[in-house]
Amino acid sequence: MISGVLLDLAGVIYDGDVAVPGATEAVLRLRDAGLPIRFVSNTTRSTKSAVLDRLARLGLSVTADEVFTPAEAARQWLAEHGRSPHLLVHPNLVQEFDDLRSGLPKAVVVGDAGEAFDYRTLNTAFRELIAGAELLALAPNRTFKDADGKLSLDAGAFVIGLEFASQKSAIVLGKPSQAFFRSALATMSCADAQAVMVGDDAETDVAGALAAGLAHALLVRTGKYREGDEKRFEPAPTATVRDISEAVDWVIDASKR
Amino acid sequence: MISGVLLDLAGVIYDGDVAVPGATEAVLRLRDAGLPIRFVSNTTRSTKSAVLDRLARLGLSVTADEVFTPAEAARQWLAEHGRSPHLLVHPNLVQEFDDLRSGLPKAVVVGDAGEAFDYRTLNTAFRELIAGAELLALAPNRTFKDADGKLSLDAGAFVIGLEFASQKSAIVLGKPSQAFFRSALATMSCADAQAVMVGDDAETDVAGALAAGLAHALLVRTGKYREGDEKRFEPAPTATVRDISEAVDWVIDASKR
Repeated sequence: MISGVLLDLAGVIYDGDVAVPGATEAVLRLRDAGLPIRFVSNTTRSTKSAVLDRLARLGLSVTADEVFTPAEAARQWLAEHGRSPHLLVHPNLVQEFDDLRSGLPKAVVVGDAGEAFDYRTLNTAFRELIAGAELLALAPNRTFKDADGKLSLDAGAFVIGLEFASQKSAIVLGKPSQAFFRSALATMSCADAQAVMVGDDAETDVAGALAAGLAHALLVRTGKYREGDEKRFEPAPTATVRDISEAVDWVIDASKR
Repeated sequence: MISGVLLDLAGVIYDGDVAVPGATEAVLRLRDAGLPIRFVSNTTRSTKSAVLDRLARLGLSVTADEVFTPAEAARQWLAEHGRSPHLLVHPNLVQEFDDLRSGLPKAVVVGDAGEAFDYRTLNTAFRELIAGAELLALAPNRTFKDADGKLSLDAGAFVIGLEFASQKSAIVLGKPSQAFFRSALATMSCADAQAVMVGDDAETDVAGALAAGLAHALLVRTGKYREGDEKRFEPAPTATVRDISEAVDWVIDASKR
C-alpha cells in the first residue's frame, strides 16, 4: 500500500534546465493514479519560486505547498528559535532570507554556496561559530552533478569542515533529516509505512529516507547516480530502477497491492 | 628519565615573528643540560629554510637536521611511492615540491593553503581524488592562532571535507602521525619511554604525542592555548605549564629523576 510519494528534483525530474526523459509524463501518471506527491529537494542554489518556474517550463504544474526546500525549513527554524542568519549560501538564495529579523543571536546557515565558498567566508563563519552561533546545514550532500556532467563538491564537505574546526554539530534542515521528510509527509497525511521516496542520491535520498523511517525508497540510475551506488550505503534501496518512469511503474504497482 | 625533547615551534618558541618571552633562554638551558632537542612543526605556510632563518633571527642556532616539517615528510612519501604531487598548499610552500618528478600518478597534497583555499581549488583536488589520487594531509589541525591573535581555520577542516566528499582517508604526514614523531625521535636515538613533547595544541601536539606512544607531553598556556584545553582531549597532558620556560624546568627536573 502506497499513499504518498516523495520525489527528489535535480537528477530525478530534471538535469540542469532539461527534463529527465519521461519525467513529466511519469509525474502525470502518478497524479492520474490519485497518488499525492511532494517534491523534496536539497537544491540550495535556487529560490523556491525559481524551482516552481523551472517545473512550469517543463510542463509540470506544481504548487508552492507541494515543494519542500531546506531554505524554507531554515527560515522556520530561525523564526522559532529567535536567531538571525549569518549566511554562507549561494548568491541566488540570499533573497530567501531577506525579510528575517537582524540583531538577534546568530545562526550560521550553510548551503551549497559554490564559488562563494572561500577561505575568508569560511573563516568568518567559523569565528561566528566559536563565538556562540549555531550551525544550520541546509544540506549535507557529498557531491552533486555539475553543469559539465562531472561530480562536484556539495555543501556537505564544508559543513563537516566547519563542524570539525568548531567542534559543534550541525542541525540538518534538508534531507536526510527525519523532520524534513516527516514535514513533507504530514502535509499529505501519509504514514511512514505507506510512503515512498524516489531519488538519485543513494545516501541522502535513499538511505536517508529509510533511516528516517519511510517504508520504501527507490534509487534511480539518472542524475548523480554512479555504478555501484546501491551497494555503497546502508540501508540499501528498496529497489534500484532505470529512471523516474520505471520508479513510477514500481509505485503504481505497489499502490495496488 | 628524559633523553630527548620534542618542541613545537609556533605558539611555543615564537608567535609570528616574535619570540615567546623566555623561549630562547629556555632552549639554551636544555642545550646546557645536554638534552637533545628536535623541533617538530606542523606549520605549512613557510619553507624549512624560512623556519631556520626565523629561529636564527631569534638568536637560536638550529641545524636543518633538528627541524622536522610535514612538507619534508611528504616529499619523502611521494618519492617512496612514485607519485607526483597535486598541490593544495600555501604559495610560500610550493617551492618545497619544485624538483619532484611530474607525470607520475598523482597524490593530492593539502597544507594550510590559507587564501588559496577556494571552491575552485578544492573542487579540482576533489576531482583528482575521485579519479584515483591519494590524499596526503600535511597537518590535520583544527585551528591556528592568526596574525590578529584570533583563532582561524587550519588545514584540518579542508582535509576532513575532502575525505568526506571523496570517501577516502587522508595519510597524515605531520603531527599527530606516529611515524612523524618516531622519525624525529629516531634521529636522537631516543626511546618513546624517555621522550617528552612540548606543544600549545592540546590535541595534535599533546594528546597526539601520548597516543603515538611518547611517555610525556606538556601543554603550554601560550600560542593557541585556550582555557580548558587540557580537559578537552584524551589522553590528558602529563602536565600543563605556563610556557616553554616552565616546561623546561619540568623537563630538567624529570631528567634528573
